[in-house]
Amino acid sequence: MKIGILGSGMVANTIGTKLVSLGHDVKMGSRTADNAKGAEWVKANGSKASKGTFADAAAFGEILFNCTHGMASLEALKQAGPNHLKGKVLVDIANALDFSKGMPPTLAVCNTDSLGEQIQRAFPDVKVVKALNTVNCSLMVNPSLIKGEHDLFICGNDAQAKAKVVEILKNWFGWKSVIDLGDITSARATEMILPIWVRLMGLYQSPNFNFKIVR
Amino acid sequence: MKIGILGSGMVANTIGTKLVSLGHDVKMGSRTADNAKGAEWVKANGSKASKGTFADAAAFGEILFNCTHGMASLEALKQAGPNHLKGKVLVDIANALDFSKGMPPTLAVCNTDSLGEQIQRAFPDVKVVKALNTVNCSLMVNPSLIKGEHDLFICGNDAQAKAKVVEILKNWFGWKSVIDLGDITSARATEMILPIWVRLMGLYQSPNFNFKIVR
Repeated sequence: MKIGILGSGMVANTIGTKLVSLGHDVKMGSRTADNAKGAEWVKANGSKASKGTFADAAAFGEILFNCTHGMASLEALKQAGPNHLKGKVLVDIANALDFSKGMPPTLAVCNTDSLGEQIQRAFPDVKVVKALNTVNCSLMVNPSLIKGEHDLFICGNDAQAKAKVVEILKNWFGWKSVIDLGDITSARATEMILPIWVRLMGLYQSPNFNFKIVR
Repeated sequence: MKIGILGSGMVANTIGTKLVSLGHDVKMGSRTADNAKGAEWVKANGSKASKGTFADAAAFGEILFNCTHGMASLEALKQAGPNHLKGKVLVDIANALDFSKGMPPTLAVCNTDSLGEQIQRAFPDVKVVKALNTVNCSLMVNPSLIKGEHDLFICGNDAQAKAKVVEILKNWFGWKSVIDLGDITSARATEMILPIWVRLMGLYQSPNFNFKIVR
């Protein structure tokens, strides 16, 4: 499958590398086509990996992953171009964590709105599925890195898009338990987990943990 | 031990009933001394149960539980009186859930502040320990209601107060795993779990679930 990744940081790199390893054609998009991190990633990942602008990656992908920093996601998607996003599934992994006032970070949007909803509102023709934003990138594509059962949360307005993403999460990335929280307004709920995630990372001095809902 | 409970709702009732069953003397405090729910609770719980105003309960208790609704907690504590709170441990169970705009509720304070911090700032002489606010009251005093391991989060500025509360949670209420997230600013993190808690309750149609941190 042809997959477009928006972003070139650690999350983009991890997701892109995993997808290439599964045999997919992946284009990583950045603000500029000559992005150095993108070039390194292409070099490391061979002929199935390519890079370009946000617009190039969005045009290329049949399915898209938003791996940009949440504070820059709306601008990146604008640069990607609504015409390149139209009708596609966008897996939104971003969190609008604002580190500008020091640690711990705050959320630039929360409570009555969320980044996932902002994206869905700004680009009504894209099928936003919020997912993977509650775990570290090491776990995103390798959930068995930690032992025992643990859960991933997804939400979004389009049932078919969510089913497609659940398939990817389970069959490609190895997730065993995916909890569908409902429509995209549930992005508030998953993005608002980030503050406790940050505290727990500080406590454990490791990002390799996750939530399990016990009933 | 003499324990003061602020509030007369379901959480107050559950905590109070458990404490009386353990042999403690418990006074439930409300806005007015003739509160009907308080009277019912006293009638059901015998001679170790009593009721009065917020000030009566705060004056009575060697340790206090804030079981008021989060939207009313600061006012209730003001009525309780700083002189009755001074030096005491206050277990803050409240969440500032605002239902005035419909479902799902939003938080009246979050992200850059929290109810726990507001209480600690307003009453600097009380030792606020945020705890139990991330589980339903049925679980608060009976964590074994759900099978398997699951975690409770606490935070607060006073290490001795936290140690005392951990002892209560473990020895009186039966909690096996209590995670200390640090100082009272971590109340932001635990209060911000509420949105996903509310969504999960909707999904499961039951409040009997909890979070476990898997590592």
